[in-house]
Amino acid sequence: MKGNGANAIQRGRGLGPNAALIGEPGGLTRITTPALVLRLDLFERNLARMGEFLRGRGLKIRPHSKTHKCSEIAKRQIAAGALGTCCATLREAEAMVAAGIAGVLITSPVVGAAKVERLARLNMAADGLMVVADNPENVRELAHTVRAGGGELTVLVDVDVGMQRTGVATIAAAVELAKQIDTSDGIRFGGIQGYSGMVQHIEDYDDRAATYGVHLDRFAATAAALTEAELAPAIVTGGGTGTIAIDAARGVINEHQAGSYIFMDVEYNLIEIVEDRGAPPFATALTMRNTVVSANAEGFVTIDGGFKCFATDGPFPELCDGAPEGAKYSYFGDEHGRIEFANDGETLPVGSQVELVTPHCDPTVNLHDYIHAVRGDVIENIWRIDARGVL
Amino acid sequence: MKGNGANAIQRGRGLGPNAALIGEPGGLTRITTPALVLRLDLFERNLARMGEFLRGRGLKIRPHSKTHKCSEIAKRQIAAGALGTCCATLREAEAMVAAGIAGVLITSPVVGAAKVERLARLNMAADGLMVVADNPENVRELAHTVRAGGGELTVLVDVDVGMQRTGVATIAAAVELAKQIDTSDGIRFGGIQGYSGMVQHIEDYDDRAATYGVHLDRFAATAAALTEAELAPAIVTGGGTGTIAIDAARGVINEHQAGSYIFMDVEYNLIEIVEDRGAPPFATALTMRNTVVSANAEGFVTIDGGFKCFATDGPFPELCDGAPEGAKYSYFGDEHGRIEFANDGETLPVGSQVELVTPHCDPTVNLHDYIHAVRGDVIENIWRIDARGVL
Repeated sequence: MKGNGANAIQRGRGLGPNAALIGEPGGLTRITTPALVLRLDLFERNLARMGEFLRGRGLKIRPHSKTHKCSEIAKRQIAAGALGTCCATLREAEAMVAAGIAGVLITSPVVGAAKVERLARLNMAADGLMVVADNPENVRELAHTVRAGGGELTVLVDVDVGMQRTGVATIAAAVELAKQIDTSDGIRFGGIQGYSGMVQHIEDYDDRAATYGVHLDRFAATAAALTEAELAPAIVTGGGTGTIAIDAARGVINEHQAGSYIFMDVEYNLIEIVEDRGAPPFATALTMRNTVVSANAEGFVTIDGGFKCFATDGPFPELCDGAPEGAKYSYFGDEHGRIEFANDGETLPVGSQVELVTPHCDPTVNLHDYIHAVRGDVIENIWRIDARGVL
Repeated sequence: MKGNGANAIQRGRGLGPNAALIGEPGGLTRITTPALVLRLDLFERNLARMGEFLRGRGLKIRPHSKTHKCSEIAKRQIAAGALGTCCATLREAEAMVAAGIAGVLITSPVVGAAKVERLARLNMAADGLMVVADNPENVRELAHTVRAGGGELTVLVDVDVGMQRTGVATIAAAVELAKQIDTSDGIRFGGIQGYSGMVQHIEDYDDRAATYGVHLDRFAATAAALTEAELAPAIVTGGGTGTIAIDAARGVINEHQAGSYIFMDVEYNLIEIVEDRGAPPFATALTMRNTVVSANAEGFVTIDGGFKCFATDGPFPELCDGAPEGAKYSYFGDEHGRIEFANDGETLPVGSQVELVTPHCDPTVNLHDYIHAVRGDVIENIWRIDARGVL
């Protein structure tokens, strides 16, 4: 071990098998795989471009942690101007609060006595914790449990704007639930959420804007009805990476939840986020690095990444480095992938490494424990994916 | 907290949010979800039935840990007569050895200087560690590195019997590699592996036996050529849950690698493992328990399990408890699933729980951190999935 290796081991405790490579010249080329790699130059550019885009458009951002599940990334987003961070689960919120992050909004209803009790405890430790709700019984349980613990928690009404996944189904129900929150001891009414996951990946911008426009109309009407009822929502939150430009143009929401813009992936690279309409051109900052582990067949080789390395709900991973032009990835079981070459005689030696754009970044990151943050071929840092896990 | 609750908290340290429920009457009904649940009665029956089936058939079992990634389960398999455990990755092997498990066979080539060094270190700590190889350069690196550390490691030749994922491509190459292993200081020749993942899920037994028969013929010819070359393989290993009956009938392999038989899943429940031909009738011992988190739509409700809870490479999860007859699961994003009811007016209240058979057990288990081992409605124990992670 040379240079700053000894320091690296100190700093690297608990950061996995690549900890000793932190700061080493050429460390990336010797990385143990399968490894999530984040190009810091591109990541920082994505953060800056989102900031530039939002400035002057009356839209703030509380970006979604479900994408990265990594408090180190949430901290960098906040340093770049984010209000806090959104979390999909109580587990994510606990990890973010434990890392000292303020302004956490849990964007799915937290249901069941055990989870509501954990939420009430978390609220006592947290600065500016918020949760959404879409059900009167859940609101009663939230109020009762938080009050019993001596705290107060901000609750937003989750509004179904068209996807029917979570959220109240009608404007009347939204007003009713907001009133219940507003008049319950232990909780306070914080605003409304309307997230439309289904429109994020509609490829054509105009199609996306048309479908999403109907959802935003419904959301705007909900906000108006609440204002009418003297419950004007302070926070009106929603949006994803696929709707940034539409959200900025429409002005219905005042807080944006985009997550994937920091990484990008095959799915988001397929759609028009639309530079020409003012949305920022985000770069693919996250890749998977894999190693060729077998090369005895003709026309293809086997790498160390399959169903346990890449999320399989979306398109296939796409090769972006280390393989001949035209080579294609396909799944080859739980632990393996196959790289098929376009031309006769092409191959890759056992031990060589390739990089791939992740298919759907959120559930892919969830399969891993570490993000390797690199600049050039130096591993500058390794960040634990400290909010992974579903419980 | 009543009864043995205080003890449960002591025992439960580090076992997740359900630790306090261990031993509590009715604990399962109050479990925090999404939770992997293992019915111990069925799991133990599966272990016993595999033992009964193998006895008298000249076939031993070194079951595959890639299914469960849980040293507590590997220990129970060994207590039921297994020779040790198979591992797909170095990471799994490190976790199994750390838990005190002997007889670990790593069934994929371990490639690259950093991993080979870890393997050599692991070998010094392990009892009976073995690895497969399919490449002369990799064998040279294994021998060199293990020898430099003062150890000796058993290496098996990985033989491609038809899937072309890993393994040497010809009988001549198998003999050549076995000779190289046999004559290299630091490593010893332990036998051969021929695994045919592609045939495991061919639904019809006769079709499966026909395709797999060709693979077994090739594997038998490889073993014969090695014997001819005075390198008779002591271990001839392969097989999966889908080929147990065929492997027992054919007698080519002497060690079986089946993994999924302990849990079963939607995929394996689709195929004939064929009771009538002597293969044991394994029960579905593993399920996912989820909670209804939103119920504002007509005809369906939303539960807390999506792409980050279930592996999406196979069929859909199947409801097996808690929902009306005929209800179907479908994905509803990263964190949510949708339960669609068969009949008008059916619903489930927010907070109620359902159970589902996992679609493909191996990559589903890999998404989680804990297995909740239950008997009736008592959580008897919680086991960490201590070998999960890809690095």
